[in-house]
Amino acid sequence: MYTIPELQKLIEQAIPAIEYPSHPKNLYDPITYIMNLGGKRLRPALVLIATDLFSGDVNAAMPAALAIETFHNFTLIHDDIMDNAPLRRGKQTVHEKWGVNNAILSGDVMMVEANKQLAQVNTGVLKDVLNTFNTTAQGVCEGQQLDMEFETRNDVSILEYINMIRLKTAVLVGGAMKLGAIISEVSPEQAELIYDFGENLGIAFQLQDDILDVYGDPEKFGKQVGGDIIANKKTFLLLNLQQAVSKADEQSLLDQSTNNNLDQKIAKITALYEKYDIRGLATKEMTAYLDKAFDALARIAVEKHRKEQLIQLSKELMNRET
Amino acid sequence: MYTIPELQKLIEQAIPAIEYPSHPKNLYDPITYIMNLGGKRLRPALVLIATDLFSGDVNAAMPAALAIETFHNFTLIHDDIMDNAPLRRGKQTVHEKWGVNNAILSGDVMMVEANKQLAQVNTGVLKDVLNTFNTTAQGVCEGQQLDMEFETRNDVSILEYINMIRLKTAVLVGGAMKLGAIISEVSPEQAELIYDFGENLGIAFQLQDDILDVYGDPEKFGKQVGGDIIANKKTFLLLNLQQAVSKADEQSLLDQSTNNNLDQKIAKITALYEKYDIRGLATKEMTAYLDKAFDALARIAVEKHRKEQLIQLSKELMNRET
Repeated sequence: MYTIPELQKLIEQAIPAIEYPSHPKNLYDPITYIMNLGGKRLRPALVLIATDLFSGDVNAAMPAALAIETFHNFTLIHDDIMDNAPLRRGKQTVHEKWGVNNAILSGDVMMVEANKQLAQVNTGVLKDVLNTFNTTAQGVCEGQQLDMEFETRNDVSILEYINMIRLKTAVLVGGAMKLGAIISEVSPEQAELIYDFGENLGIAFQLQDDILDVYGDPEKFGKQVGGDIIANKKTFLLLNLQQAVSKADEQSLLDQSTNNNLDQKIAKITALYEKYDIRGLATKEMTAYLDKAFDALARIAVEKHRKEQLIQLSKELMNRET
Repeated sequence: MYTIPELQKLIEQAIPAIEYPSHPKNLYDPITYIMNLGGKRLRPALVLIATDLFSGDVNAAMPAALAIETFHNFTLIHDDIMDNAPLRRGKQTVHEKWGVNNAILSGDVMMVEANKQLAQVNTGVLKDVLNTFNTTAQGVCEGQQLDMEFETRNDVSILEYINMIRLKTAVLVGGAMKLGAIISEVSPEQAELIYDFGENLGIAFQLQDDILDVYGDPEKFGKQVGGDIIANKKTFLLLNLQQAVSKADEQSLLDQSTNNNLDQKIAKITALYEKYDIRGLATKEMTAYLDKAFDALARIAVEKHRKEQLIQLSKELMNRET
């Protein structure tokens, strides 16, 4: 069995080896650029981790892993346009560097590149692989659409929020692992279990992200601590606070949304989170999803010791500060 | 054997029957909207025409035909954003109606819908179908990129122009027909021949489009006659004129590029086209590609009478005024 760092290394080696056409240069350079901005390569690694868990051939799963990473980076290019984001991993975003039109089109051709990689998997599992990949890609698009719509809505329910992060983040985690299972030719039931593990882990991961935005260590957290608060982002924490606050605090919360003193804004909203123990509530919810993930993992029919790495990885992801 | 109008009718019936998710509404409504703006459905019909030519099962080819039409409409959504176009077939473009971000994302999910349809073809031909579709889609993206780049370049050669229209328009015509051939399980040689027929027909079609921009009947031509001249678009005609003009006429041609009297601009440039017989030159080039198409068709190993409809269609396309 491979260790997770070994699988991540395989991905790291495979990415620069992908060959794109050289012409038109401005169409393909952005692909090389964003694919090499780095990152933990967790999504493609999960394809290989799932393959290895079920004793499948990790090399046979590599095209699917690269398809997942390519697709993920394509969504980053288009999301950055939609979010008007100037930076990605501290570097210029593609649309900043090449212009919006070029970024739209490079993203489009990247989606084709993802499909080209996918088409390389063994014929026997190809149809299942395509169906899982397409369902996953569709979910991610739906999640991004909901995320955009939530920005201008004031009646987002907590259930709707969970569904949005499920689509935007978690289906890709689940889908990546399901691809690995399909390539290992396990039963549909086993493939669904690893999907459930991944999806629930993904939701827990995103809830942890919401918590870290407020409580992360500024020295270690990759993004600006309080960034969601400043942007009035409807996170799991804010939506729960809005439900929990008394009439008196409701007005004070409302006032903060237009407070231009950002340090004060962060401090005041964090104080409200403390008062209503929103952190405890969010941690409880996160733990519930993590438990669901572990329940699914426990039901997977492979020797227990093969699951240990995944359990360890999950725990690390939940205790991370970055 | 089906008639071409019968195949077009099959497509017309199949399109409204495609089921998209109902939610998020703003993600999927643009798909239904653009798919139902009309058009001749020529591209998807070509998949079925090729299938029928090779005595394949037209119903088995329908998913690939719908994938081609869905992909084509996805490119229209994104192209309209890039071209900042307000109207498409006389109706608001998707980005005008739903906003640019929504249009990017609806386009993205449409690409996924195209792939979902494609994944429904018979397993035995699936890999070939995917490879042809992906190569086609990639070519179309490259063509759009080159088209955008040519707007700001002053050194576009005629060969580069032909390559651009080949990628932007003709590979989709060829690719659509090749899909039909693959689904009919013909030999790779036969599939390449119908691809060559389609690609060359597509180039001839686009050259005819360039000619019609200047010489089309304003009552019948779908677009504004002289629209390319007004926009200083580097068409086959303009590029050839630039090569052919004398020193004296070169300055007069240059002056027209900034002439705001549009009727005069059209008249003066048309006069230069006449003087150097650019229409004759373009017609000759168009005919050469049409001949190449017919040569490929002649080499296809099916009874001659089965090819008659395609020959008739090709001739109609070259003698059209719309």
